[in-house]
Amino acid sequence: MLKYLNTFNMKNEINTKVLPGFMELLPEDQILFDRIKGTIQTVYEQFGFFPLDTPAIERAEVLMAKAGGETEKQIYSFSKGDNQLALRFDLTVPLARYVSEHVNEITFPFRRYHIAKVYRGESPQKGRYREFYQCDIDIIGNGSLSLMNDAEIPSVIYTVFSKLGFGQFVIKISNRKLITGLLSSLGIENLSVDVMRIIDKIDKVGKEAITEMLVEASVPTDAILTIFKFIEIKGSNNEVLSALDELNIDNDNFKQGLADLKEVISSIEKLGVPNENYQIDLSIARGLDYYTGTVYETTLVDYPQIGSICSGGRYDNLAEKYTDKKLPGVGISIGLTRLFSQLKDAGVIKSGPKTTSKVLVIPLISDMSIPLQIATTLRSQNIPTEIYLEDEKMKDKLSYANKLGIPYVILIGEDEIKAGKYALKNMLSGEQKELSIEEISSNIY
Amino acid sequence: MLKYLNTFNMKNEINTKVLPGFMELLPEDQILFDRIKGTIQTVYEQFGFFPLDTPAIERAEVLMAKAGGETEKQIYSFSKGDNQLALRFDLTVPLARYVSEHVNEITFPFRRYHIAKVYRGESPQKGRYREFYQCDIDIIGNGSLSLMNDAEIPSVIYTVFSKLGFGQFVIKISNRKLITGLLSSLGIENLSVDVMRIIDKIDKVGKEAITEMLVEASVPTDAILTIFKFIEIKGSNNEVLSALDELNIDNDNFKQGLADLKEVISSIEKLGVPNENYQIDLSIARGLDYYTGTVYETTLVDYPQIGSICSGGRYDNLAEKYTDKKLPGVGISIGLTRLFSQLKDAGVIKSGPKTTSKVLVIPLISDMSIPLQIATTLRSQNIPTEIYLEDEKMKDKLSYANKLGIPYVILIGEDEIKAGKYALKNMLSGEQKELSIEEISSNIY
Repeated sequence: MLKYLNTFNMKNEINTKVLPGFMELLPEDQILFDRIKGTIQTVYEQFGFFPLDTPAIERAEVLMAKAGGETEKQIYSFSKGDNQLALRFDLTVPLARYVSEHVNEITFPFRRYHIAKVYRGESPQKGRYREFYQCDIDIIGNGSLSLMNDAEIPSVIYTVFSKLGFGQFVIKISNRKLITGLLSSLGIENLSVDVMRIIDKIDKVGKEAITEMLVEASVPTDAILTIFKFIEIKGSNNEVLSALDELNIDNDNFKQGLADLKEVISSIEKLGVPNENYQIDLSIARGLDYYTGTVYETTLVDYPQIGSICSGGRYDNLAEKYTDKKLPGVGISIGLTRLFSQLKDAGVIKSGPKTTSKVLVIPLISDMSIPLQIATTLRSQNIPTEIYLEDEKMKDKLSYANKLGIPYVILIGEDEIKAGKYALKNMLSGEQKELSIEEISSNIY
Repeated sequence: MLKYLNTFNMKNEINTKVLPGFMELLPEDQILFDRIKGTIQTVYEQFGFFPLDTPAIERAEVLMAKAGGETEKQIYSFSKGDNQLALRFDLTVPLARYVSEHVNEITFPFRRYHIAKVYRGESPQKGRYREFYQCDIDIIGNGSLSLMNDAEIPSVIYTVFSKLGFGQFVIKISNRKLITGLLSSLGIENLSVDVMRIIDKIDKVGKEAITEMLVEASVPTDAILTIFKFIEIKGSNNEVLSALDELNIDNDNFKQGLADLKEVISSIEKLGVPNENYQIDLSIARGLDYYTGTVYETTLVDYPQIGSICSGGRYDNLAEKYTDKKLPGVGISIGLTRLFSQLKDAGVIKSGPKTTSKVLVIPLISDMSIPLQIATTLRSQNIPTEIYLEDEKMKDKLSYANKLGIPYVILIGEDEIKAGKYALKNMLSGEQKELSIEEISSNIY
């Protein structure tokens, strides 16, 4: 007993638990996660976005130039040799650096997708991760970029979430020029960053709290009333656009924002997104500074508590910190790690089998020729197939397939080889068929 | 001029070059890289391996327990809050930690693949990367694992490299028990780690240098002669096995190694790997300590300078540092980043188009209904399709397709819409066909 305890303690000196704030999944969840990630990637590629992959480690100066505030505190930074290094906190800053560096080698508009992990050393709390996947697309222009791209983005979002099948969703759209123009017309453009950060929280904290925060941020009372009058405009897209016209704001930025929003909204329809899947929502401002025009958020109608599942927008100048070139762009991001965890908690998605294998070949003889021939035939038809190689009892072999959730088992013994017919067993229904090698694959679904 | 210089300097305060030792690709190479990575993943899944994804950041104590020597110096480590953290230097240590932590939740044999980046702060030199992809498979048993798994691994390697088409390759196989048994029989088992590290370099530095190193490592002269007699055994697999029999080494470890090697070699044939694609090579020892049985290396026949493109082996105890459970396993790893760079340099692979898009739809009218209908039809058939949205001259639109290497362009103007026939232009051959929407997809290859 003492010996056992000693051994136990020795082994437990090393903590093998995953670090707090990091996601690590069991196979049944990993397979589900990867399937969702794969669907997003497929849709991105269908829309003509191509893959980009940049290092997870950047020069600290590159990240610090773009971070600031909360984000800067969350950066994982370290040094190695002469270099001050840091882990990327998003995929937009690396894109900005990449495009600046390779501006003469790449073709514009530059349509890339990037699905990879990013790092933020946040205080761990439910739904917050320190390492998480972002699934981004961006379209970058050199000098200019047509507003039609702002209209195409919702059709990508629409296709992604239609395919994923998480239920009804709405893409909420606004244009930042409206609120910045409005604030200018009120003479408080200097407060616009604060005001946008505050009103962005309205869905979470409610009107009263927002009012208090605006007062604290020194926004005059009459301006607060006008801001609420603006963000509370509701109705159909046409009704909202009319109401915005009727506000009669005499500010060029506001007028431009309204004209842009009209064009984007009318083009979204032409680009085939159903009416129930997008709507103007003037309370959408996005926390991040760099958006300058169209902004998007996407919410699941039946799960509003999840918040935005896909957000993004238009920015005038992707890489002003790194290059003199004007590089306008528009893009979106899906924070997949957090989304996955919330969808699991809400019961929207459920883990399935513990393997991607469809077939388990169980040889009851030592000659592997026939088992291999069957496995190779199935594999060449893209049916993931495993041969059971351990020397166990029959019961344990079938139990392995059951535990993993492998849907089909093929038994191969002397008799089967003589007859040239092999037993294909459907592990769910229990149904068993005697089939020739050629017949097997067409009986697997 | 002065103003220009000032601006130039200001922008250049931030270094946007990728860090030395990190790979960053242009789209034409990234697409090629991802295609290779995708093929490896597909084959791994066909053989019934399922995906695993662990954090890139581990507790420093977890990595340090397994690192040691050169590797330890190369670890990127840092602290955040109370935690001493480090970036993983391979995918095997995280697997060991994962399996230890989840040993009661997972099913054995545990067949996972993991394709992800790992980090080693090596001195930058040609062909060495500080961030690189490893593409690993491992099969882990709980308590025991059949030797048949050692024989299945070469059939995975064979399928991967047959599909990748990098030319003729040979999987070299040995068993570590042979050399450790031989050294025991010579009374120098205490030198076995050194000896294996040294003879592993024979392909790179030659016999003379190896002899010197062995002398320096205090290996007696007669032992050196025996070691060479052993590693220089050449011939067909049967010839090598006979020669090993004839050595008549009276050591249990050696005898076990020989018996295991015989079984693995005869099973590989039954598992369908052609004779010319595998051979016993007794100079294969693998630098890493943890291998205890079968070891593999794979080389391209026409590019021996590239060295091993896929290596691995059997280990008795995956996670002895973390758990009391005996977890034997066998696995391989492809170091894809280095391999990609070397294959490019050698001209084995060549970059292709700069996008994954197959079709560019060019609307010559403002109504997007028909362009969208065509794009949606093609996308739903998994043909990546882009709509050209910028307001440019016709010449520039076609030039965009040409620059990116998009193989097909569809032109849609008033006349085409009236006729219900659209011009599908093959950008390579110049051929143009007038087709209905339904006919388009079957004309794209």
